[in-house]
Amino acid sequence: MPIQKPRTLSGFMELLPQKQVLFDAMVEKLRRTYSLYGFSPLDTPVIEASEILLTKSGGETEKQIYRFTKGDSDLSLRFDLTVPLAKYVALHYNDLAFPFRRFQIGKVYRGERAQRGRFREFYQADIDVIGDGALDILNDAEMPAIIYRAFTSLGLDRFVIRVNNRKILSGFYAIIEEEDKAPEIMRLVDKVEKIGLEKVGLMLVDDLNISEDTVGEIVEFMAIKGSNQEVLTALEEYRGRNEAFDQGLDELKTVCRYLVDFGVPETHFAIDLSIARGLDYYTGTVYETRLLDYPEIGSPCSGGRYDNLAAYYTEKQLPGVGISIGLTRLFYVLDEQGLLNPDALTAPAEVLVLPMTDDLAPAVTLATQLREGGIPTHLYHESKKFKQKLSYADKLGVPFVALLGEDELAQGKVALKDMSSGEQLLLPAEEAVRHIHTALAARRSAPPIQEKNYV
Amino acid sequence: MPIQKPRTLSGFMELLPQKQVLFDAMVEKLRRTYSLYGFSPLDTPVIEASEILLTKSGGETEKQIYRFTKGDSDLSLRFDLTVPLAKYVALHYNDLAFPFRRFQIGKVYRGERAQRGRFREFYQADIDVIGDGALDILNDAEMPAIIYRAFTSLGLDRFVIRVNNRKILSGFYAIIEEEDKAPEIMRLVDKVEKIGLEKVGLMLVDDLNISEDTVGEIVEFMAIKGSNQEVLTALEEYRGRNEAFDQGLDELKTVCRYLVDFGVPETHFAIDLSIARGLDYYTGTVYETRLLDYPEIGSPCSGGRYDNLAAYYTEKQLPGVGISIGLTRLFYVLDEQGLLNPDALTAPAEVLVLPMTDDLAPAVTLATQLREGGIPTHLYHESKKFKQKLSYADKLGVPFVALLGEDELAQGKVALKDMSSGEQLLLPAEEAVRHIHTALAARRSAPPIQEKNYV
Repeated sequence: MPIQKPRTLSGFMELLPQKQVLFDAMVEKLRRTYSLYGFSPLDTPVIEASEILLTKSGGETEKQIYRFTKGDSDLSLRFDLTVPLAKYVALHYNDLAFPFRRFQIGKVYRGERAQRGRFREFYQADIDVIGDGALDILNDAEMPAIIYRAFTSLGLDRFVIRVNNRKILSGFYAIIEEEDKAPEIMRLVDKVEKIGLEKVGLMLVDDLNISEDTVGEIVEFMAIKGSNQEVLTALEEYRGRNEAFDQGLDELKTVCRYLVDFGVPETHFAIDLSIARGLDYYTGTVYETRLLDYPEIGSPCSGGRYDNLAAYYTEKQLPGVGISIGLTRLFYVLDEQGLLNPDALTAPAEVLVLPMTDDLAPAVTLATQLREGGIPTHLYHESKKFKQKLSYADKLGVPFVALLGEDELAQGKVALKDMSSGEQLLLPAEEAVRHIHTALAARRSAPPIQEKNYV
Repeated sequence: MPIQKPRTLSGFMELLPQKQVLFDAMVEKLRRTYSLYGFSPLDTPVIEASEILLTKSGGETEKQIYRFTKGDSDLSLRFDLTVPLAKYVALHYNDLAFPFRRFQIGKVYRGERAQRGRFREFYQADIDVIGDGALDILNDAEMPAIIYRAFTSLGLDRFVIRVNNRKILSGFYAIIEEEDKAPEIMRLVDKVEKIGLEKVGLMLVDDLNISEDTVGEIVEFMAIKGSNQEVLTALEEYRGRNEAFDQGLDELKTVCRYLVDFGVPETHFAIDLSIARGLDYYTGTVYETRLLDYPEIGSPCSGGRYDNLAAYYTEKQLPGVGISIGLTRLFYVLDEQGLLNPDALTAPAEVLVLPMTDDLAPAVTLATQLREGGIPTHLYHESKKFKQKLSYADKLGVPFVALLGEDELAQGKVALKDMSSGEQLLLPAEEAVRHIHTALAARRSAPPIQEKNYV
């Protein structure tokens, strides 16, 4: 029979076991964080009817989507977790309690051009709070706390959550009477970080035909920087000239006001008036996240407030606020940067039990005792030389090997070898359990990511 | 804009939040069990190149598979986790340590005829141990222990793991000189439970043209019942007449021998000579599981030993043994039977914090304290009447509500209301944390399934 050369499609992440453990640890940290904030898990199908997924999309989505027929059905793979959420909330409206808080961590599909670090199948880790008719601004204020705790639980500390409010932007453009050009202006302003404020100012004049005076006002507005308090004070100068602006400013102040009570240090939060996050979806608070040492990767966690989640499926008004972490890309970049934590336990087991007697019963019993003691245990019995068995343990990276020969059995003990120090202890099984729990406590709780120390 | 009526495709399970919590709890229990036995997590793409997935398949798979083109690529959705494992092991052979023990819990796709309780998208929860060239029989002996612990961790106790060995069957058919008809015979014998041994005997004569003497031998063989020891003793009578039979019997004896040491009670394990599990894949030990009160649902966990995992992708000989749990169907059936545990915590949070003052800072601080104390907390602040807020708490099923008004604040305490007893305690925040941990300890560790008591 001819051999079919095995391959995995490009743009699809497939990890080796040790990295998979770390990826799963990230997923688990996010699950725990989201649960701690009172979000219910949700799992929707990967496949939906095309007419359900494509109601709201324009050209780009249409091009990227995986769409196909099966029998008479026109089907598509989900390209995000938001559209399925909208469908879910509209479909199950009567069975849900509002505000409905859900998290979903799952794979989505986009047939993008294959490119290093770009994925066609990738995990998103989303949370959203959906209100029925109305949704209190306190939910917007809580989001930075969730981002903060989620990122720190992964092992990240050098990041800043950047927040803005779309009403402040639209209000400002109304004040300077440039509402019509606001989308184009925002698109240019979005380039400030890349090309600088001065160049953006020139382009506003040349490309958009905006008067120099007005450009001056835009530049002045965009130049508002400083501590959160300083920015808010500067924004107060514009109050009273536009209703949307005033409302946006009040919302932003509320978001900032409870930060500390929510446990977010001032160092990790910044108002940034240049953030707009797309043009038609978000209507209030918007969030981005920046890894300080890796600004080039963009925002690994973004989101915001929207007025109406499910207008395509229901006439109910369902406002919401949410954030999304692009987990596959984040993991890829952190791995590329060498930030996966070498202290984290990534072996399939914490102990490899090596029987050294013909009767395997004592080794089986030991493995069972270790497992009942809560220790992931791999019972290894293949006909190999002892040296090969130890090199298997090394290759797996198991921290301990438990040797059980006639001598140990005679004493009712086990020889427990610490694979990093080489130290070998002779202990009864129950003491071996305790010893392993103590020895590995720190490594077990090590976060999946470890930032480099740039001191 | 016209409203698109929301719907979820038939054959795709989509759960409401409280059931999703229980489904996820089952997944988590399986993850933990598999990890405890030294298996590494694996996550392969849902989409593979069609020529990779379809190498080994015949007509039925071909018909059911979701296959489509995207650009120039001929793609398919995986229909099980075994073929992707074979590809993975062949592709990453040089980076893996053998035996390679992996678990994978993920969705697979089969476009079956839509039918109640049949799913087109469903979770499989698989473990496999793959050897390089050889794999010790002790791995086969360990599998029942993993099934036993997995099922008991879910909350199931009334089940039996049934085991057989394909070599015993093929050896027996060689002994009675009916090797050629063995597949057809086994297909008929498989019906014993449904139609009885006598009817099967008649069909063997009529349909397969087997002599009555030989049918007598088959019936006698299949009638071997009793304790595991009794069955093994009866099988010894056939020893010495066929090499495969003798080898199969030795393997089966080894599997049985270490059962108790592996922690499997005799009550939950039975040799069953009628089990064959398909005709061309398994080559040695085979496993099925039977829920005693629901025999009609078939085997929710099955598997066995195979000689060569990845013959389509590599010339390496990679024998293995594995089991697979059909998780979506199992969950569906248990739910239908009313076995989801009503004691399990399924609310999105354990506490709902209700601020009763204009300044929200104390309520935000309390929510932060509760979360830092490890308690899933939902901070609820919508402009609703107090009664509506409590009915929201009821609808969510949160066990506790924390009320924070001027009185409580003045005393530096919180009013903690137990929603099931109605009891209300006035406690400082840190004591509230302790109280909740104590009160919910039992419910937190409640398994997702609770069998009915048929006393």
